[in-house]
Amino acid sequence: MTDNYYAVIMAGGGGTRLWPLSRQSRPKQMLQLIDDHTLFQIAVHRLESLFPPERILVVTNQEHSIELCKQAPELLEENFLLEPQPRGTAPAIGLAAAFLHRRAPDAVMAVLTADHYIGNEAEFRSHLLAAKELALKDHLVTLGIDPTYAATQYGYIQMGESLGETGGYPAYKVQRFKEKPDAVEAQKMLEAGFYAWNSGMFIWKVERIWAEFAHHMKKLHAALEKISQAWGQPDFEKVRNYEWPRIAAQTIDYGIMEHAKEVAVIPAKGMEWNDVGSWSSLFEVLGVDSSGNLVRHEKHLDFDSRNSLVHSNGQDRMIVTVGIQDLVVVDTGDVLLICSKERSQDLRKVIERLKEKGLQRYL
Amino acid sequence: MTDNYYAVIMAGGGGTRLWPLSRQSRPKQMLQLIDDHTLFQIAVHRLESLFPPERILVVTNQEHSIELCKQAPELLEENFLLEPQPRGTAPAIGLAAAFLHRRAPDAVMAVLTADHYIGNEAEFRSHLLAAKELALKDHLVTLGIDPTYAATQYGYIQMGESLGETGGYPAYKVQRFKEKPDAVEAQKMLEAGFYAWNSGMFIWKVERIWAEFAHHMKKLHAALEKISQAWGQPDFEKVRNYEWPRIAAQTIDYGIMEHAKEVAVIPAKGMEWNDVGSWSSLFEVLGVDSSGNLVRHEKHLDFDSRNSLVHSNGQDRMIVTVGIQDLVVVDTGDVLLICSKERSQDLRKVIERLKEKGLQRYL
Repeated sequence: MTDNYYAVIMAGGGGTRLWPLSRQSRPKQMLQLIDDHTLFQIAVHRLESLFPPERILVVTNQEHSIELCKQAPELLEENFLLEPQPRGTAPAIGLAAAFLHRRAPDAVMAVLTADHYIGNEAEFRSHLLAAKELALKDHLVTLGIDPTYAATQYGYIQMGESLGETGGYPAYKVQRFKEKPDAVEAQKMLEAGFYAWNSGMFIWKVERIWAEFAHHMKKLHAALEKISQAWGQPDFEKVRNYEWPRIAAQTIDYGIMEHAKEVAVIPAKGMEWNDVGSWSSLFEVLGVDSSGNLVRHEKHLDFDSRNSLVHSNGQDRMIVTVGIQDLVVVDTGDVLLICSKERSQDLRKVIERLKEKGLQRYL
Repeated sequence: MTDNYYAVIMAGGGGTRLWPLSRQSRPKQMLQLIDDHTLFQIAVHRLESLFPPERILVVTNQEHSIELCKQAPELLEENFLLEPQPRGTAPAIGLAAAFLHRRAPDAVMAVLTADHYIGNEAEFRSHLLAAKELALKDHLVTLGIDPTYAATQYGYIQMGESLGETGGYPAYKVQRFKEKPDAVEAQKMLEAGFYAWNSGMFIWKVERIWAEFAHHMKKLHAALEKISQAWGQPDFEKVRNYEWPRIAAQTIDYGIMEHAKEVAVIPAKGMEWNDVGSWSSLFEVLGVDSSGNLVRHEKHLDFDSRNSLVHSNGQDRMIVTVGIQDLVVVDTGDVLLICSKERSQDLRKVIERLKEKGLQRYL
């Protein structure tokens, strides 16, 4: 266990990239994608040897908090911080920073994700310890991911001057945050070799990030200050529900990271990180059989299929695949998705069309 | 209407080639594949202007007869001839021949199919009239189908010496019946040009075919004679249920047609015949949209798919297809089949595997 170190799990997301399994009412972090634990449960469990439950916070919304509380009963109910509406990562992180600024202003906080896969958890925890060390030297630290291919679905971090080693890992000044690139740019960055993927994991002193909010996001800081002052008071909900809807949506990258000084990155290798951001990424995490298939359904018969995913929670349906190739088949009972693997990265169009057609019940 | 001409619809089949839609308990002829009439209803309706109901017989089994009676209430219940067990086309046709040999020995009978598609029904009826004319000259007539491609799933008939015109159509002596060919043979026969597909439709005098049974299939003839003598008697079922199981299974082609003399073929063109013998044949019958797709499901969203079939009777399920190609997707609620189009001709392996695994409930 570390002293005075808090974990903040960002669990408010409602991603649709694993649609139709992930739904508005049951987003990715609540799904048992890897084993019989949900991604959220796994995200909590991998913190256990580093953070006692009272030092694990969860930022989410009212609706999700009920299910998440059930999934992790070891966490304290008061440590669930609720966003009345989604406003992006800056307000969500700001909420946690405001809370900690009152409770433990001298602490370091690690902003972590609820719905990513991390294969090597010991390596992950070592990185968190290394990052804390650097944060204590007043850096805003981000955990980068060492790129393994020319991904176009992540933001990139350009690494600059070396900051030496911290906790056994090399650290660098951040030269530039770069938005999701196209395929050509991605290939260039991969070959250039001084870029890391932006994982969305940040480690910093509470005091330091709170000052950054005050400096770069004055309105948000003021609103959070009011909410924070009302904490534990009878009018808390009234204050929060007045202030929050008036907050402008913003990401922490745009709002703070791109403007702040002393921003550092530790490029993580060996963590076996995967954002499980598409059906095809499940192939990487879970592995495939000798025909390249990944089958997650008991009642399934296959004849000569290759490189395909079959996932079903319609337990009673017999699924038969014959000679299919490079397909993603997902059956949730109410929805059946059959998608070519190369298109599985992008289900946004489907979601948009369903909305247009008033078919919200499938979202 | 024609005088003394009987239609015998062979409706005992339990084909699995349109599995999972066609099932043991609900074979192809009972399905609404083309419109909101079943193939059996369509097979009956297209005879109406030629045969009064009392001259339409149906050969089927006990189980299917209940549903078929419901589907065609205009037919007489006594005209449903029941096979206690399936024994192939020779005994089934023999049963009808035995029945007619008692009721109308001077009649001509047309053996017809219950589960084929015929686009041009007027042309079909003209062929039946032409065939009757030739049958009255003591020929065993078969309706051939003029081949449109090198099909490997049909038997072929080699046409010999011309028999001149009959009812406006050219007729030929049958030189040889040929089993389902391989692709090379099929191509040769298509190019040679004097072959027709064996449609399984036969027209002959009752007296003549009955004599052929007596000559070529003595044991079957004797058994049918006993069953026929018991018709209308109190011990009919007892006699039939004793004789029938002892009958050897045989096709009419092997049992009689390949050995008989004066076998003729009328090669039918323009009937728009299709045996609807596979999922891909439905594309030919029903036509496709501008992307080559055939969709038979209301709740369906597609993004850029091509040459694919989506058929569902799971009415409440939303089916979404993204970028799929050359696929057959059939959803029956309890079963989901996803099959590459080129494999859709052959679902036998699936059926065999289900049997091996004791999954008869899906057959």
